[in-house]
Order: sequence, then structure tokens, then C-alpha cells
Amino acid sequence: MPDPSLLEFFPSPTERPFVVEHVAEEFTSVCPKTGHPDFGVVTLRYVPNRRCVELKSLKLYYQAFRNEGIFYEAVTNRIRDDLAEAMDPLWLQVITDWRSRGGIRSRIVATHGSVPPEWLRPA
Amino acid sequence: MPDPSLLEFFPSPTERPFVVEHVAEEFTSVCPKTGHPDFGVVTLRYVPNRRCVELKSLKLYYQAFRNEGIFYEAVTNRIRDDLAEAMDPLWLQVITDWRSRGGIRSRIVATHGSVPPEWLRPA
Amino acid sequence: MPDPSLLEFFPSPTERPFVVEHVAEEFTSVCPKTGHPDFGVVTLRYVPNRRCVELKSLKLYYQAFRNEGIFYEAVTNRIRDDLAEAMDPLWLQVITDWRSRGGIRSRIVATHGSVPPEWLRPA
Amino acid sequence: MPDPSLLEFFPSPTERPFVVEHVAEEFTSVCPKTGHPDFGVVTLRYVPNRRCVELKSLKLYYQAFRNEGIFYEAVTNRIRDDLAEAMDPLWLQVITDWRSRGGIRSRIVATHGSVPPEWLRPA
Amino acid sequence: MPDPSLLEFFPSPTERPFVVEHVAEEFTSVCPKTGHPDFGVVTLRYVPNRRCVELKSLKLYYQAFRNEGIFYEAVTNRIRDDLAEAMDPLWLQVITDWRSRGGIRSRIVATHGSVPPEWLRPA
Amino acid sequence: MPDPSLLEFFPSPTERPFVVEHVAEEFTSVCPKTGHPDFGVVTLRYVPNRRCVELKSLKLYYQAFRNEGIFYEAVTNRIRDDLAEAMDPLWLQVITDWRSRGGIRSRIVATHGSVPPEWLRPA
Amino acid sequence: MPDPSLLEFFPSPTERPFVVEHVAEEFTSVCPKTGHPDFGVVTLRYVPNRRCVELKSLKLYYQAFRNEGIFYEAVTNRIRDDLAEAMDPLWLQVITDWRSRGGIRSRIVATHGSVPPEWLRPA
Amino acid sequence: MPDPSLLEFFPSPTERPFVVEHVAEEFTSVCPKTGHPDFGVVTLRYVPNRRCVELKSLKLYYQAFRNEGIFYEAVTNRIRDDLAEAMDPLWLQVITDWRSRGGIRSRIVATHGSVPPEWLRPA
Amino acid sequence: MPDPSLLEFFPSPTERPFVVEHVAEEFTSVCPKTGHPDFGVVTLRYVPNRRCVELKSLKLYYQAFRNEGIFYEAVTNRIRDDLAEAMDPLWLQVITDWRSRGGIRSRIVATHGSVPPEWLRPA
Amino acid sequence: MPDPSLLEFFPSPTERPFVVEHVAEEFTSVCPKTGHPDFGVVTLRYVPNRRCVELKSLKLYYQAFRNEGIFYEAVTNRIRDDLAEAMDPLWLQVITDWRSRGGIRSRIVATHGSVPPEWLRPA
Repeated sequence: MPDPSLLEFFPSPTERPFVVEHVAEEFTSVCPKTGHPDFGVVTLRYVPNRRCVELKSLKLYYQAFRNEGIFYEAVTNRIRDDLAEAMDPLWLQVITDWRSRGGIRSRIVATHGSVPPEWLRPA
Repeated sequence: MPDPSLLEFFPSPTERPFVVEHVAEEFTSVCPKTGHPDFGVVTLRYVPNRRCVELKSLKLYYQAFRNEGIFYEAVTNRIRDDLAEAMDPLWLQVITDWRSRGGIRSRIVATHGSVPPEWLRPA
Repeated sequence: MPDPSLLEFFPSPTERPFVVEHVAEEFTSVCPKTGHPDFGVVTLRYVPNRRCVELKSLKLYYQAFRNEGIFYEAVTNRIRDDLAEAMDPLWLQVITDWRSRGGIRSRIVATHGSVPPEWLRPA
Repeated sequence: MPDPSLLEFFPSPTERPFVVEHVAEEFTSVCPKTGHPDFGVVTLRYVPNRRCVELKSLKLYYQAFRNEGIFYEAVTNRIRDDLAEAMDPLWLQVITDWRSRGGIRSRIVATHGSVPPEWLRPA
Repeated sequence: MPDPSLLEFFPSPTERPFVVEHVAEEFTSVCPKTGHPDFGVVTLRYVPNRRCVELKSLKLYYQAFRNEGIFYEAVTNRIRDDLAEAMDPLWLQVITDWRSRGGIRSRIVATHGSVPPEWLRPA
Repeated sequence: MPDPSLLEFFPSPTERPFVVEHVAEEFTSVCPKTGHPDFGVVTLRYVPNRRCVELKSLKLYYQAFRNEGIFYEAVTNRIRDDLAEAMDPLWLQVITDWRSRGGIRSRIVATHGSVPPEWLRPA
Repeated sequence: MPDPSLLEFFPSPTERPFVVEHVAEEFTSVCPKTGHPDFGVVTLRYVPNRRCVELKSLKLYYQAFRNEGIFYEAVTNRIRDDLAEAMDPLWLQVITDWRSRGGIRSRIVATHGSVPPEWLRPA
Repeated sequence: MPDPSLLEFFPSPTERPFVVEHVAEEFTSVCPKTGHPDFGVVTLRYVPNRRCVELKSLKLYYQAFRNEGIFYEAVTNRIRDDLAEAMDPLWLQVITDWRSRGGIRSRIVATHGSVPPEWLRPA
Repeated sequence: MPDPSLLEFFPSPTERPFVVEHVAEEFTSVCPKTGHPDFGVVTLRYVPNRRCVELKSLKLYYQAFRNEGIFYEAVTNRIRDDLAEAMDPLWLQVITDWRSRGGIRSRIVATHGSVPPEWLRPA
Repeated sequence: MPDPSLLEFFPSPTERPFVVEHVAEEFTSVCPKTGHPDFGVVTLRYVPNRRCVELKSLKLYYQAFRNEGIFYEAVTNRIRDDLAEAMDPLWLQVITDWRSRGGIRSRIVATHGSVPPEWLRPA
């Protein structure tokens, strides 16, 4: 399994809460059942407490799943757990959107903490 | 009618609640009135309690409707009932979107339990 | 004016509340002022109490407006009233979207009862 | 400035509240600073109290801004004020969306009264 | 760093609260780590207290970031801080959407004050 | 059947050949087999010889099909014939695009004369 | 295999050549290798010689493939052969577009006769 | 009528032929029949001989049609004639796309010279 | 490098020429310069001589590039060469579309033989 | 002006002609007249003779225009000339698409050599 120590962080530039979203459109891992590759989009959203994740280290952490056999539900919860533990954010959400298999496409949403009101969609 | 025992399950990879969505874009059944085939998209969303539905078994369960004569409203409620009973989820929603018949396209939404807050759409 | 007795109904397949949406994309009536035809999309949404509207009868009821002279606001409220009275639903909404006239396109929304929580848009 | 007496009204066809939206996609006025024309889309939404605005008179009222020099913020508030005063609606909202100037496109939202619950976006 | 005194203001045309949105689609700054240019869209939304920002001065303020080395999170908070201090608005939100780097695209949302109810998205 | 004398013409403003296209998005006629209404988009393209068709008269001519029972193939050829005879153009093409019936949508293309080179699609 | 005698025809309404296109968006057959259903869109284009295919009979002919095991390439050529023989058209083309299997979506194009010039795409 | 002397030119930066396209999305003139404003998009394409049209002067020339009463066909040919005479290009094309009137939207294409092969649309 | 013997073939179901297109949307290989993964879409088009490529074997052949270090231009030509040699088709084209790197997205087109006329795009 | 020696090349992986397209979506230069930045998309297409342009060097060459004052027409021809001279390709095309200025968006197309037939757009 990818080593969470691949992740690097930098101090938040402000003490006021704000929201960060990183959408990784080139995620791939391997289905542990069939051995065929899976392809998905990983959306990470969080409100930093004191630390922000560094973008290049996030890319390398995601790339480390490339040849891992792991199910959709497990990989989503694992990314949520690794990032929540390493960043200690006020709120964090991981959404994975997977390309169709057998005519069915899937989305998994794992959350840590409560949705911040400033993240609500305006008109 | 399709046998719910076609459905297989695996234990949820975490005890923390999270949301799963599977969108089956190739659903087809038969109109009991005209005998002509109906075509739709079936969206399943749920928060697992302890079990997740296995994707290939879900596909086979859906395929078993292929030559069944059943109305839009009935098939949607039946899928909701079969999955809610077999999975005992914290929340579950089935949405069917049907291709146009006579210039009218239809959507049916059947729910079990209350919408979890982490499923709310952000900005 | 179209006769509401054109509408036919069948018993809801379940006693649990669920949501139905029928989008009729080929509605046309006549502007009573200019005599020119109007074209719109009629969206009907409801939570059945005990009865569901039969789709073909709904099509015939809508077609009966084809040569009627009636304003946007009136036709929307009339469909709402006819269906609410005939179905006695827990909730019902009629939305009409009209093609542009003189560079202005219009939407009318008429509601009966309160929006059900399971109809709220998720993430 | 356009004369609000251009606006004509007709009695609401019902005493039950409902929502009306008119989207005028061909609005143009003049920038008072540069003298160049501005182009925008004007969206009017309201819940009638007793009166509805007549569509052709609304078009003529909008056209009367064609050669007026007026800022985005001012024109939006003026339309809101003129219509709110003339119609006395339960709720009214004017949204203007302006084509890009110097790489920046703008939207102004002016409201009168509170958003009605039947206007909330469903699933 | 860009001088906030580049920003100019004009008095709000009304004492009633309303919402303004300016979307600048041609923002560019420089990544302080790699020295390569970053490209993004900057969305500014606010409810004026007494002052509105003048559009051309906003463009010049944004252009002043062109050759600055600054991270996504920092530039977003800085624009929020500069505008909130200079305008003293009832509410203000800055959203930056950045083009993909290494297969990851990012959005940062910084807010000042609470979302006004008239900004909620209707049906 | 609609009377071609509904069509009015005006002299071409130039002797040099040019191309005209009118897309009527609100065409409706009746299926002679089922009695149900058909809905389509009628695209007329031509190179005038000496006459151009007047737009309002074209609208009235199309509206005259509203309650006519006529097949897709027949209505397309009839419009081609009526306009070719009345205008004597250098080139003329009528394309009808019909909304889906029984899951099948249709397009009919009837032409008079040869495609002019200035109508070829550039890069 | 579906019986081509399901197909019915009617005389072309004109002796001048014109083009017909029918797009059936709800085609389904069965993969002879896996036994799983395939889903596709079948586009038929032709220039009638003397006969046009009747739309409802075409629907029934397509529906007869519902439980047939047949490969993409074979079904496309078979439809081309059946229709070319039964209609004797001046030109005919069958295009099938298949939903993704294993991350690969497919299109097959089978033609009878030469593309007519009036079918070329204009500007 | 707009004075073609509003148009300014600069020498082509090269003697090799190349293609220029300017798409003006905010064109408006007045219908001479109804007195109501028309709105369109004017696309100018040309291969310069020795001169290129200066962009700001082109904008002012287009703006001069704002309050002119002129038909679609006439304005398109007039722009073609004014620019062809003033620039003497190797090839020139003017395309106007007009917003819908009475449910019909229109496009006019006027050309001067032959389409250059380097303008053909590639794969 | 992937072994072309992974590819399997079956006899063409007809002796008449027809066109096949397979679009693989989940291709990934590795950049030999940076070691980072590349992601692309591989479109294969061909007119079979006597053999068609079997879809599952094509998927496995593409998957074999997953951990290969190879440039865009090389992988496109290699797929063209492998398939042209193994199938001996009348025509074959390989198009690769690569996701953006450093703000630049790329397409490579390699062809074997001449474009068949039945592959030309119609109206 | 950017130094063409920034461009690096590598030998074509094959002697057979093929087509390369690189689309740079983040190009920016400066308008020499107003001093304001311009933003565009630069599309480069070519058939290599013996050399291909290296992607990272192409990015650096484009970035070197960032603070140059240069007109649309000039920058397009300059890129064409620099690349044609340095690569000596069988065919080369440079297309620039510029964001709207004063409501007008522009495209410039400069070509070297003749369009190769394998680049024609298929059905």
C-alpha cells in the first residue's frame, strides 16, 4: 500500500478557514478480483486547520496506487484516512468517480467532519 | 421476477459512514401493456451499515429484468425494497430515468431512510 | 378546455411515499392574443397518495391543448389544478418552459403541497 | 430613463402563489463611461400578488434602455425597483448577466422579498 | 505584491443589499517553486455595504499579479483580504479555479462574512 | 394542404450569389397513420436567383401544416417543391429533423440543384 | 435470426432522389461469447429508389435482435444486407455505435453504393 | 448607412497567404419592417492580399449599424462589399447568424473569391 | 515492449469492404523522460481485408503498455505497425489523444493505406 | 523576440509520414497598442520530415512570448516561420484562437506546405 509519508505539507497562509479542492483526473489502480486496471477521478476537498497538502507530493502519493490491487470503496476510505490523519483538517471529503465497468459507473464519497457553510453552492 | 438472491455482498471496509453510488446505464425491461421494451438508467445510492453490494452481482440482478413485464413505478420500488432488505443500509435511494415514450420521459425516485448530510452538494 | 376526465389513474404500487416526474417535451397550445402557436416543455412532479397517473392518458390530456387559446400562466395553473384534484397527491409541481417569443423565454412553476425532503438534490 | 408606465399588467389567473420567470436574452444598454454598448441577459423572477406583467410590454420596457448610458449595478436595481413598485409582488428577483469586458464577465442579483420555498431546486 | 491602492470604488446605487459577481477568466501568476506560469479564473462575489469596486481598476489589480511568484492558496486569501479591507462589504467570496498541473486541477474558496439568503440557487 | 401562395418574396439585394439558411425549430404536423402530432425542425437553405423568401410568410406557410396529416418524407419533398417552384433558386435544400418516435429519430434531406462551393464547411 | 419479412415498405413520394436517415437509439442484442447484453445505436441512411422503409416495421425488425447472440461486425453487415436487398436503394449506409465494453467503444460502418453528393456536410 | 471610411487597415506582416477570422458576437441592427432590434453574430474570414483590418476600427464600423433599419440579407452583403472593396483580399467571407424571430433563426453567407485550400477543416 | 502475438483475430463476416472503429478510452503508458504516467485515448480505424481484431485481445495488447516507457509518437507508430502487419487491412488509422502536460495536449495520427470513400463524413 | 534556439528536436521514430498536433491552451503575450495582455490557444500541426519538436522545449519557446508586445497576425506567422525553418516539415500549420476583445474573438491560420490527405476528417 502507498506510504502516507509520501505526502508533504506546508503551513496554511492564513488562520481564517477557507476551502481547498484538488481534482486528480488521472487516477488508476488495479481490480483485485479481475487483475484489470481501474480508472477514476479523485476529488479531495478540505478546510485546513494549520496545514495544506503540497500538490506534487499528492500526485506522487496517488501514483503509488498504480499497481495496487484495491476495491473502489477501500481506496476511497484509505485516502480519506491517510489525509485526515496527516493533515488534521477542520473538514475533509474524498470523492472517487470510476469509469464504467459492465455498463455501471460508480462514485464513492467519504467524509471527515461537517460540511462548512461557505462551501454551499450559491445561485 | 428477478431473484434477490442473485445479489452478493461484502463487508464494508470501514465502520465510518460513507456514500456509494452505482449508475447502471444499460437497464432494459418490457412494458406490460404494449409488450415493447423500455430502456432506462438506474442510479443506486446508499450509506452502508455493514455490507456493500458486489458490483458484478448487481449487474446480473439488473439483467434479470430484461424480459420481465413491469411498470416504471413498480420496478423502481421493487429494486429499492430488494436492496434495502438485503443490505439493511443506513440510507438508500433508487432513481430510474426512462427514455422518452410518446414524447414524455420519466424519472422515479424511491428512498429508504433520510438523506445523509455528507451527500449534500457543495459549491 | 381539455376535459380532465381524459386522465386515467392506477393504484400506487406501494404505500411508501416516492417521487414521480414526467417531462413532456412536445407541448403546444395557441396564444390567445396573437393566434400564433406556443411551444413548451411541461414537467410534472408528484408524490402519489394512492394513485399514479397513467402515461398515455397524460399524453392525450396534454394533446387536447393543441388548438386551445390560453396564456402561459393560465395553462400551468390549470394543469396543476386538474391533476391535484384528480390525484389528491401528497405533493405536486407543474413547471412549464416556453420557447422564446420576442427574445424572451419563460418558465412558470405552480405547486400543490410542500417539497418532500427526498426530492432535494444531493452532491 | 425608460418610463415604467410602458409596463402593462394583467390579473393573476389564480389566488394561489406560483412562480414566473422571464429570461430576456437580448438586452443592450450603453456604458456611460466609454460610450460603448453593453450586452446582457436579464432574468426576472417573481411570485405575483395579484398582477402579472404582460410579456410584450416587458420587451418594450427593456428595449427602452437601448441607448441609455447606465452602469450594470444601476440598471439591475432600477428594473427591480420599477417592477416591484408597479406589481407589488410577494417576491421578485432580477439577475443580469453581462458579456465579458476586458476579460471579466459580471452578474448582478437584486431581490425584493424572501425566496419562496417552492422555488428551491429539486434533485 | 500588487498594490491594493490600484483598486477604485464608486458608491453603491442603492441602500438595499444586492449581490455582485465578477468572473475574471484571464488571471495568470507565476509558481514560486517552478517559475512556470499558472493560469486561473478568479470569481469575486460580494454584497456591497456602501461601495462597489470599479471594473477597470479590478482588471488592473489582477494584471499586477502577472509576474508575481505566489501559491494558489496565498493569492486567493490575499485577494479576499485586500478587497474585504478596501470595500468593507456585508459579504464577500473569492473563488480561484486553476488549470491542471500534473493532471490535477484545483479550486480555492475564501470567504468573508456569511452567505446572504438571496444568493441561494433557486430551481 | 398548405397553399404555396402564402409565401411572399422580395428581390435579392445583390446579383452576386450568396447563401441563405432559415431554421424553423417549431414545426408540427400530424401523423396520418396514428393521428398523433409530429414535431420537427425544418432547415431551409438556398442560393437566391432573383428572389428571397420573406420570413414572416415562411412562418405562416409552415404553420399551415399544423393540423395536416402527412408523412415525414412527403412533407419534406412538398416544401422543397413548393419553394423551388416559387423562388426558382440556383440551389435549395430542405432538411427535416423529427423528434423520436418509438425510440427512432429521423432526418430527411431533399435537394434542388447542386451544392454551391461557398457553402462548404471551412476549418 | 430476425426475419427480413418483418420489414414493410411504402412507395417513395417522389421520383427525385432524396436522403432518409433513421437513428434507432435503443438497439440491444447479446454477445455470443459472454452471453451478456450489448447496447448500441443503429443509424440507417439511404436514398430510395422506389421504396421507403416503414418506421414501425423497422422498429419491430430491430427488436427481433433482442435475444440474438451476434457480434458487432456481423449484425451491422446483416442489417445492411437485409435492407439493401429488400429496398434496392440507390445508396444505403448502416452505422452501429456500441456502448463501451472493457473501456473500448466501437463503431461499425457498412455501405451499399456510393455516397450521394447532396449528403455532403455544408458550412 | 455606416461609413466604410471608419475602417482602418495595417500592412500584412508577411507576403505568404494566411487566413484571418474575426467573430463579432454583439452585433445589433434594427428590422426596417417592425422597428424592433435584431441581434446577431458576424463572422468575417479573409486571406489578406496586402492589408489587414484593424480590430478596433472593425468594432466601430459594426457598432455604426446599431440604429440602422436593414434586412439580414442586405446587411450581410453590404459588409461583404465594404470590406472587399476596402481590403482587396484574396478571399473573403461574411457569415451572419441571427437570433430566433417567430421561432426561426437565420444564417446568411456572402463570399468574395474562392475558398483557400489551407482553410479546409482537418480531422 | 508488448508482444503483438497478444492480438487475436477472427475472419471478417463478409467479403464486402466495411469500416471498423474501436476507441480505447483508458490507455496509459509511462513517459521515458520523466518516469511519470501518460494517459490517452487510442482510436483504431480499419477496413478489414479478411481478418478483424478480437476486442478482448486488443484490450490486453493495449494494457501491456501500462508500465512501458515510450513517447507519444513512438507508441502511435508502433500500434499502427503491429496491427497493420498482423491484420493486413485495406486501410488502417491509429489516432492517439493525450491528456495535457505542461498546458499542452497532443494528438498523433498514423495511417496505413488510403482513406476509404465510405468513411467520409456526411451532412 | 523569443529565440528559436529554445526549440529542441528529436529524430522521427519512423520514415513513414504521420501527423502530430500539439494544442497549447495557456498562451499569453501583450498587445503592443494597449499594453494589456492577450490570451490565446496555439495549435501546431505538422507532418515530420525527419525531426519532431520536443514538447518541453516547445512550452518554453511559447512562454518566452509572455511579456512580448506583438499582434495576433504577427505572432502566428512568426511561430509558423520559426518552426518551419527549424524542423523542415513536409507540412505545418499554426492556428491561434484568441479570447474576445471588445466583443470580437479572433482566429489566425498560417500554413506551410499542403494539407496531407490522411489529415482529412472522416465520418
